[in-house]
Amino acid sequence: MTFPSWLSQLCRGLSRPIRRTTQPIWGSLYRSLVQSSQRRNPEFSSFAVRTNTCGELRSSHLGQEVTLCGWIQYRRQNTFLVLRDFHGLVQVVIPQDESAASVRKILCEAPVESVVQVSGTVISRPAGQENPKMPTGEIEIKVKTAELLNACKKLPFEIKDFMKKTEALRLQYRYLDLRSFQMQYNLRLRSQMVMKMREYLCNLHGFVDIETPTLFKRTPGGAKEFLVPSREPGKFYSLPQSPQQFKQLLMVGGLDRYFQVARCYRDEGSRPDRQPEFTQIDIEMSFVDQTGIQSLIEGLLQYSWPNDKDPVVVPFPTVTFTEALATYGTDKPDTRFGMKIIDISDVFRNTEIGFLQDALSKPHGTVKAICIPEGAKYLKRKDIESIRKFAADHFNQEILPVFLNANRNWNSPVASFIMESQRLELMRLMDTQEEDVVLLTAGEHNKACSLLGKLRLECADLLETRGMVLRDPTLFSFLWVVDFPLFLPKEENPRELESAHHPFTAPHPSDIHLLYTEPKKARSQHYDLVLNGNEIGGGSIRIHNAELQRYILATLLKEDVKMLSHLLQALDYGAPPHGGIALGLDRLICLVTGSPSIRDVIAFPKSFRGHDLMSNAPDSIPSEELKPYHIRVSWPTDSKAERAH
Amino acid sequence: MTFPSWLSQLCRGLSRPIRRTTQPIWGSLYRSLVQSSQRRNPEFSSFAVRTNTCGELRSSHLGQEVTLCGWIQYRRQNTFLVLRDFHGLVQVVIPQDESAASVRKILCEAPVESVVQVSGTVISRPAGQENPKMPTGEIEIKVKTAELLNACKKLPFEIKDFMKKTEALRLQYRYLDLRSFQMQYNLRLRSQMVMKMREYLCNLHGFVDIETPTLFKRTPGGAKEFLVPSREPGKFYSLPQSPQQFKQLLMVGGLDRYFQVARCYRDEGSRPDRQPEFTQIDIEMSFVDQTGIQSLIEGLLQYSWPNDKDPVVVPFPTVTFTEALATYGTDKPDTRFGMKIIDISDVFRNTEIGFLQDALSKPHGTVKAICIPEGAKYLKRKDIESIRKFAADHFNQEILPVFLNANRNWNSPVASFIMESQRLELMRLMDTQEEDVVLLTAGEHNKACSLLGKLRLECADLLETRGMVLRDPTLFSFLWVVDFPLFLPKEENPRELESAHHPFTAPHPSDIHLLYTEPKKARSQHYDLVLNGNEIGGGSIRIHNAELQRYILATLLKEDVKMLSHLLQALDYGAPPHGGIALGLDRLICLVTGSPSIRDVIAFPKSFRGHDLMSNAPDSIPSEELKPYHIRVSWPTDSKAERAH
Repeated sequence: MTFPSWLSQLCRGLSRPIRRTTQPIWGSLYRSLVQSSQRRNPEFSSFAVRTNTCGELRSSHLGQEVTLCGWIQYRRQNTFLVLRDFHGLVQVVIPQDESAASVRKILCEAPVESVVQVSGTVISRPAGQENPKMPTGEIEIKVKTAELLNACKKLPFEIKDFMKKTEALRLQYRYLDLRSFQMQYNLRLRSQMVMKMREYLCNLHGFVDIETPTLFKRTPGGAKEFLVPSREPGKFYSLPQSPQQFKQLLMVGGLDRYFQVARCYRDEGSRPDRQPEFTQIDIEMSFVDQTGIQSLIEGLLQYSWPNDKDPVVVPFPTVTFTEALATYGTDKPDTRFGMKIIDISDVFRNTEIGFLQDALSKPHGTVKAICIPEGAKYLKRKDIESIRKFAADHFNQEILPVFLNANRNWNSPVASFIMESQRLELMRLMDTQEEDVVLLTAGEHNKACSLLGKLRLECADLLETRGMVLRDPTLFSFLWVVDFPLFLPKEENPRELESAHHPFTAPHPSDIHLLYTEPKKARSQHYDLVLNGNEIGGGSIRIHNAELQRYILATLLKEDVKMLSHLLQALDYGAPPHGGIALGLDRLICLVTGSPSIRDVIAFPKSFRGHDLMSNAPDSIPSEELKPYHIRVSWPTDSKAERAH
Repeated sequence: MTFPSWLSQLCRGLSRPIRRTTQPIWGSLYRSLVQSSQRRNPEFSSFAVRTNTCGELRSSHLGQEVTLCGWIQYRRQNTFLVLRDFHGLVQVVIPQDESAASVRKILCEAPVESVVQVSGTVISRPAGQENPKMPTGEIEIKVKTAELLNACKKLPFEIKDFMKKTEALRLQYRYLDLRSFQMQYNLRLRSQMVMKMREYLCNLHGFVDIETPTLFKRTPGGAKEFLVPSREPGKFYSLPQSPQQFKQLLMVGGLDRYFQVARCYRDEGSRPDRQPEFTQIDIEMSFVDQTGIQSLIEGLLQYSWPNDKDPVVVPFPTVTFTEALATYGTDKPDTRFGMKIIDISDVFRNTEIGFLQDALSKPHGTVKAICIPEGAKYLKRKDIESIRKFAADHFNQEILPVFLNANRNWNSPVASFIMESQRLELMRLMDTQEEDVVLLTAGEHNKACSLLGKLRLECADLLETRGMVLRDPTLFSFLWVVDFPLFLPKEENPRELESAHHPFTAPHPSDIHLLYTEPKKARSQHYDLVLNGNEIGGGSIRIHNAELQRYILATLLKEDVKMLSHLLQALDYGAPPHGGIALGLDRLICLVTGSPSIRDVIAFPKSFRGHDLMSNAPDSIPSEELKPYHIRVSWPTDSKAERAH
C-alpha cells in the first residue's frame, strides 16, 4: 500500500455501509509482524487501564465488558464514532437514550484526535452492516461510560491533508506524523527485526552485546567526526564513525563474539538521505574467515526477515569486485534485472567505424554494450538523445544506439557501417530480440563499464516509467561483492595510496607478497553486502599481526602511528585472528519497508541540512555556557552582519 | 569469588595433581548464565574455525576429533599446556615423539598468552590424574597438529601481578584486563540480562524498541550537557541527559509502549563512580498509572534476573518519601538491615537533660535514636568519639550514646540523668538487648533523621568491619519510594521553586489544588526504585495537559517556555495520559555482580576524570579542524604557559 492512499482512506472514515477502507492494512500489521511468528502474542494491554486494544476485538469477544482508550478518528451524525489506537480501529455506538446524556455529550463534543476512554459491551453489528474488510467489522461497542482524557486543539491543518504537505511540515509535527499507519508500521517492523537479530546473535550463536563508548579520540584522518569539547582547555572528544577500534580490542580481550546495535556519527554537512547519526548492526568475531562471516549474516537476515515478505534464500550469490565492475559497471549492482554489460570488442576487431577502431587500438581499449529489452518500443527518440548527451557530458564518451530491427535505425549515424554478420554476432552475444536496442560504447574498460552501469540503471527507471515491469517490487536480491582492492590511489596525489576501506583490512591471503612489490595490485579480504543495488553492509577480516599492521600504516599509508599506538600494542599481546561486518540498519529497514527515504524509518530524523525541525536543533548557546569548555565562536565576517539583525 | 583470588589462582595454573583451582568458576559462568535458562544452548562454535570451545569438553566427547583455538594460559615442563578461551580451560598434552617435532616446537616455544590452534583427539586423563574441580578435568587433548596464530610479546607486567596493579593500569591495558574471568563474567551477565529485559518488554508485552536522537537541542536549565558544535556558526547540538522529551513525544505519536536501552550523557566534570556517558533502560507507556509501571518493572526484574542468584520476590515493598526520611534518614534506604530511626520524643517530655529540653521546646523539635545491635561489644570507644565528632562537624548536632548495660556507660556524660523508667521505656520502644548501644540525638525532625540515617550506614559498615554479618551478601532488597514532593526550594533562592525531579512530573491527584495555593506542599507522582540503598531507577506519571504544564513551567518555575514550545504544542494535540521510568543499567549490573565500581561493568570506561586511559581521549585537535565548526579555543591565561612547554 502507499502512504497517502492509506491515510486519506483512513481519514475518510468508516460509514455504514462501508466502502473500501484500509482496515485490512491495520489488521495485517500485527498479523504479519507478530502473530505469524512462532511466539505467543504480546500482551498489549498488560499494566494499562484498558482491557483490550481497539484493533483486536472480534466476534469471539461478543458480550465482553471492555475498556478501550484511543483517539477519535471520525464521528458520524452523532450516532457513532470510530476509535483508533496503534492496533487498529473499532466502531463505538454513541448512546441515544436520555439516561446517557453525559456520555453522549462527551462523545459528541470531543474534537477529532481527542483521546477518550470508553467502557462498554462488545455487541454484533446489525445484520447487513458488517464490514468484512475491517478486522473489527463484525462488532461494535455499546458504551456505558466515557471519559475525555485529553481534548485535541484545532490542528494546524486537516489530518487528511497532512500527507499532501511537505516533508518539512511532517518533520515539524513529527508527533502527529507518527500516528500514521506507515510510520507505526515502519517503526514497529524495525523494532521486531532488530529483536529477531538479537535473538539470533545472542541466544542462538553466543554473541555478547557490548556497548562501546561514543566519546572517543579523534581517529587518524578522521575528518567528518563531530567534536565534543571537554572541560580541559583545547581537549576534545570525537564522536566515532563506527566502533571499529573497540570491536577489534574486544577480540584482543577474548570476548570472542561481539555485537552491538551501535549509534554512529558522521558529519558530512548537508547530504540528502544521510543522517548525522545513524545505526549499524555491528558484529565482530574471532577465529573466523570470510565464509564464516558471510554464512553468519545470511542466517541473520533469514532469521530476522519479516514474515509478511517472501523468505530470504541463502546462500547469497557472490561476485568479485572486478566482475561486478565488468558486468554491472558498479560495485553495488542491482541484480533484480539483467541488462548486463557485454564485451563485444571481438565483433568489431575489423570495423570501419572510426571511434571503435580508435578505442580498440589503445591499451585496455574495449567495446562494450548493454541491451535494453524492448527499447525500440519503450524508449523515445529524445530518451536516446538525452542518454547520448549524458554520456558526452559526464563521461566524455560516445554512445552508439543499435536498433536490431533494421527499419528503425533513427539516430544511428554509423548504422550502415555495421555489417549484417556483425549484427547477427551481436544478437547472438547479447541474446537480443528484434525490438531490443543495444547501447554500445567504446573506450577504456573501467570508464566504459562505469558509463554503461549508470545507463543500465537510468534505462531501467525509464522503462518502468513507461510501464514495463522490470524489477519485481517484492523481490529482495542480495549479493556479496568480494575481492576489493586493498588500496586506491589518493585523489589529491595519485602516487600515494589510501585504504580502499580502512587500514585494518587484511590483505587477500594470495596477495600478501604484493604488499612488498606492487601494493596497488593487492586485493583485500573486504566484502560488501548489496541489496537491490544498495550497499547495506560491509566488513572484512582484519589484520591481527602487529608487524603487518605497522608496515601498512607507517610505510604504505604514511599515517602517524602514534595515534593508534594502543591498537598496535594490543595486536602485539596475543590478538586472535578476527573479522566482522557492519550492516546499515536505517538503509536496510528503508529497503525492507519500501520507504522513499531513510527518514521514514527513523522516529525523529534530522532534515538533510542536519536540523531537527521540531525542536529547532542545533541552536544558539549563551556564551557563558561555552566558557567551561574553553571555546569561543569565531563568527565568519559575512555572518556578523546577519547576526546583527 | 573475588577477582584477585580467581586471577591469581588461574595464573598459578594447573599442575598434576591439581590443587584448588578456579576452574569451577569458569565452568559455572555458562551454567548460570545460559544453561539453566529455558532455552537451548547457543552454538558457540558456529561459523568459526574451531569445532569446540576449550571449556565445553567433557567425558562425553571422548574419542572425538576436535579443533580448538585459544590462549596459552600455562605450560609445564614442556609436557602439557593449558589452553584458555572465554568458555574455560582445557589441558593439552604436548607430543613427545620425534615425528611430532614441529608440533612440539610450536607448543613449547610460544610465549604464554600467545594464540594457538590445535587439532587432536579428546582422551581420558591417566587414572588418578583427573581433576574433579575442573569441568574439563576428566579429559585432555592429544594433539595432532598445532599452529601458532599470533605470538604474544613480553607483557609489560606479569599477568598474575596485574590485579595488584592500579586501576589506571587496568584501564590502560583494558584489552588484557578484559581477558579476566571477572570482566568476562560481568560483560556477559550484562548482555544476558539486557537480552532478557528485551524479551520481556518486546516479546511478552508489546513494547517497541525505538532509537531517539542524541544530537539534540539544549534543554532549559541544561547545564551538564555536552555541546557538539555544528557547521553553522554559533549553533550547537547538545547531548541529552535522557530521552525524556522524545519518549513523551512518542506517546503523543501513539506508539503506546516505548523502550530503549539508551545512551545518555552528563558532563559533571570529575566525579568518582560516575561516567560521562552511561546507559539507561528507558521506558514509557500510555494509559498507565503508577501501579502499572511498578508492576511492569517488578516483572521485568524478575524475568531478567540471573539464574545464579536467588529469584526476585515481587511485589516490592513501598514507602513514602516522608516515611523513608523518618525511618531511614534518606530517600534511598538500605533495607537489608534494621537499625531504624525511632522517635523517642515522648520518653523525654519531662527530661532534665538540657539539650533535649531545648530541642523539644522548638517547632518540629524531636528526639530520635537508632539502636546499634551489640554495639557495646563491637564498637570501640574511639568509634563513638568519631561518631560524635562527625555529628558535630557535619550536622552541628550532639549525639548521646546510651549503653543499656548500665556498667558500661563510658562517654555518656548525661547518662546519670536518664531515669530507670526512661531506660526501660527506651528499651521497649527500640526493642533493644543488653549489649546494644542507642545513639540518640535531638533537634529538628529532618535534620535529626538525616544525621541518624548517615550514622546508621556508618555503623553498619563499622560492625561489618568488626566481623558482624549484618547484610546478607546474597540479598537483593528492592524498595519503591513514592510520594516525593513535586517542588523544592531553590538552593540559591529558597523563595523560588524548582522541580524536585523534572518539570514534566505530574502532581499527586489529591494535591492538584495545592498547586494554586501551597505548591510547596504538593506531592508528585514520581517514584524511585531503590536496591540495597542505591537508587537504581526513577520515573513518574507525566503531565499530559498542556494548560497544567504551561502553568507549572511558566508561573511556578518561571522557565522560558519558548524552548519547550514543541512539547507544549504536542500536549495540545491529543496527548494520551502516560508515564514511564528509567533504570540505571550500569549501577544495576554493578550491584548484581557485586562489583566495586561501575567501571567494572563497562567494557571501556572513562577514568573518574573522564579520560580514556587506553587511547588518551579527550585529545588535542589541530586548529584547522576546528574551523569548519567556527570555534576557537580560549586558552586560560595560566595554561598558556603550560602549553608553551
